[in-house]
Amino acid sequence: MPPTSARVTAVDTHDVRFPTSRDLDGSDAMNPDPDYSAAYVVLRTDAGDGHEGHGFTFTIGRGNEVQTAAIDALRPHLLGRSVTALCADPGTLYRDLTGDSQLRWLGPEKGVMHMAIGAVVNAAWDLAAKRARVPLWRLLADADPEWIVGQVDFRYLTDALTPDEALALLRRRREGLAGRRETLTRRGYPAYTTSPGWLGYDDAKLTRLATRAVADGFRQIKLKVGADLADDVRRCRAARAAVGPDVRIAVDANQRWDVDEAIRWTRALAEFDPYWIEEPTSPDDILGHAAIRRAVAPVKVATGEHAQNRIVVKQLLQAEAVDVVQLDAARVGGVNENLAVLLLAAQYGVPVCPHAGGVGLCELVQHLAMFDYLAVSGTTEDRVIEYVDHLHDHFLDPVVIRDGHYTAPTAPGFSATMRPESIARYTYPDGAYWAAEEGNTTA
Amino acid sequence: MPPTSARVTAVDTHDVRFPTSRDLDGSDAMNPDPDYSAAYVVLRTDAGDGHEGHGFTFTIGRGNEVQTAAIDALRPHLLGRSVTALCADPGTLYRDLTGDSQLRWLGPEKGVMHMAIGAVVNAAWDLAAKRARVPLWRLLADADPEWIVGQVDFRYLTDALTPDEALALLRRRREGLAGRRETLTRRGYPAYTTSPGWLGYDDAKLTRLATRAVADGFRQIKLKVGADLADDVRRCRAARAAVGPDVRIAVDANQRWDVDEAIRWTRALAEFDPYWIEEPTSPDDILGHAAIRRAVAPVKVATGEHAQNRIVVKQLLQAEAVDVVQLDAARVGGVNENLAVLLLAAQYGVPVCPHAGGVGLCELVQHLAMFDYLAVSGTTEDRVIEYVDHLHDHFLDPVVIRDGHYTAPTAPGFSATMRPESIARYTYPDGAYWAAEEGNTTA
Repeated sequence: MPPTSARVTAVDTHDVRFPTSRDLDGSDAMNPDPDYSAAYVVLRTDAGDGHEGHGFTFTIGRGNEVQTAAIDALRPHLLGRSVTALCADPGTLYRDLTGDSQLRWLGPEKGVMHMAIGAVVNAAWDLAAKRARVPLWRLLADADPEWIVGQVDFRYLTDALTPDEALALLRRRREGLAGRRETLTRRGYPAYTTSPGWLGYDDAKLTRLATRAVADGFRQIKLKVGADLADDVRRCRAARAAVGPDVRIAVDANQRWDVDEAIRWTRALAEFDPYWIEEPTSPDDILGHAAIRRAVAPVKVATGEHAQNRIVVKQLLQAEAVDVVQLDAARVGGVNENLAVLLLAAQYGVPVCPHAGGVGLCELVQHLAMFDYLAVSGTTEDRVIEYVDHLHDHFLDPVVIRDGHYTAPTAPGFSATMRPESIARYTYPDGAYWAAEEGNTTA
Repeated sequence: MPPTSARVTAVDTHDVRFPTSRDLDGSDAMNPDPDYSAAYVVLRTDAGDGHEGHGFTFTIGRGNEVQTAAIDALRPHLLGRSVTALCADPGTLYRDLTGDSQLRWLGPEKGVMHMAIGAVVNAAWDLAAKRARVPLWRLLADADPEWIVGQVDFRYLTDALTPDEALALLRRRREGLAGRRETLTRRGYPAYTTSPGWLGYDDAKLTRLATRAVADGFRQIKLKVGADLADDVRRCRAARAAVGPDVRIAVDANQRWDVDEAIRWTRALAEFDPYWIEEPTSPDDILGHAAIRRAVAPVKVATGEHAQNRIVVKQLLQAEAVDVVQLDAARVGGVNENLAVLLLAAQYGVPVCPHAGGVGLCELVQHLAMFDYLAVSGTTEDRVIEYVDHLHDHFLDPVVIRDGHYTAPTAPGFSATMRPESIARYTYPDGAYWAAEEGNTTA
């Protein structure tokens, strides 16, 4: 039994960048050459149990050092904190961080500072689950509804969802939990794949990867669109030919359009029966999404990976602006704020289909989606987790995809731990990879 | 004549913090102990004309180093840039910065990274006005409408305002320009003062400062509210007694409430005839502001100092959520984005009353408000610039208030230049002030 006097003794940060821009993996209409990166944080303690809390924010390259500096700014809130108290109630840390009045000015609750809070809060949850010797989805699903509600900050939400309403929702969902857990363990959670659809891939690669996705058991794929309409028509046609009429094809514009353009463009792709149009315009434009949704039905509107916080999600739901909420594990204030997102979506009866890909986002979001299935929404109908098949090897407990489904993780924690050798090699700019790169460039 | 081959040669950043928390200046319901700070940037060139571009982001203390790091991340976009091209068209810099796809991920267009862009863009405008030997308000008011429209990024705005509509608006407003300029030069631009109303001040100090404000010619004061209703009732009563029935009293909750609470609290203060309720709830809650506005009329709803970008302002107007737009000079993407804010507000017929105070915000916003009067809205009716009377001495061209009005600046530039000795003394943590403070603390 670790001593209850154990404290957080160190907050290590790492600027880790992977050179993904070389193969146009991850290329889309707004992000032509991302270098998938992580502003990575490790919470260490003197508990003597060998457990660390790992967390990170995902970025796409430049500016990752700013994100790391933002995590560093949170260090005084962490050092000396009781490990037992932190793990018993990560919500207090979350409130202390978002409530720091001076740091709050830098958002509030948005952008670099909020993403830093998310990384640290997620690291605390990783530590809590490791110390409890369970995967995070189980820690959440086993928790009392009262405790879950206590982890949520309802500030600015009560016109849409009160603590009492959230509690009632969670209590109702206790029914059938055992059966859902059995289904989850046996079958996993449905996934869709974006791997075929990057904008930088040619048609042959798109067709080959789409065909393989169906053979691998996926029932939905996603294509990036929005750079050139003629290209998009051609690519959608090729994809539809490859997957047949029954597999869903989502399209993703990555915020490329104004409202009117989004409506025109989406209608021009309608003949290929897109399932949803994702990020048709600015992630800040709640009213814009509502206008687009009214105009492009029955094509669904999806957004959320850049939704800065629960207040934006609340309004997307209030305005009937979205058919699909795409939570992101590492943009908002960590697990605590994503509990609010899951509860809001359930309150409005809108499915959550998490955003993933990047670095380690698949590893994180699976826990949230599985908790959603078990204890919040109670269903996987019309729900899928995004899957992209790169960079998983850098994690100690990478996701396991089987027949188009995420397998429920069994290792304790939040699946967030990156291999030490990957951190060392890809640390920017001094890790072995980048140091050699610099040598090549200047040679 | 400086050579046209002149380039930007250096981007200096400074973490400057003033110990304002000691006297509770600036204290409100969300920000009990701010240390007013600036993440300060200086653009230097090899033009040999002695001109530098100065800009900054305002923060309230902790995290100012993160803001400075974000400005540092923009340096590669600036070094080597042609000074002539930069000053002839700051809009290209603004678009290059907001369009950097990797940095954009850290927002997009919000929070720390966007505020950094604002600081740098404002520094470019300061340089442009200095080189043109005119105060910024004049540079803007003298510019062709076509050029002004070209400085605005209409992305995500065209469902509310198109470039053609903006151009027509600016052209209509050429009429009467000479007369307005004469009025501005003679009379200045009306101000209101927040100096009496900080939450940390006792009733005697509030009464004394409110009385003096009226004697000094102000026709509006502002009180911080939202911590305790009984206190607010007592303070509003004291303020109303001090200023009489004809001077406007605005109240400011600094985001303290949920929607229902904002409505109840504002109604409870109605007997003191508040002119507007400012920041009643989250700055992200467009629909919340709209609900509050419907419920508390005829009390007006004001917000904007934390509106992260033009897309939020657009929606506040579309949703009829505000009676007053409170632009902030240093939160959005600089002058360029504030041109969009002014044009949007004019399109919807909603007055702009800029947020000021902090460090140097009064110095900046006066230029934007004066341009608004001359060339966009064409009126000062129901329009006032916030005024707070501290920290002006640290600037080379501090604002001049006369009979409750901002006097039109005459010095070239954006009034953004902080005294070198102030920068040196208050640089954190190594400047003389903080080094001594550290010595005292550890002694």
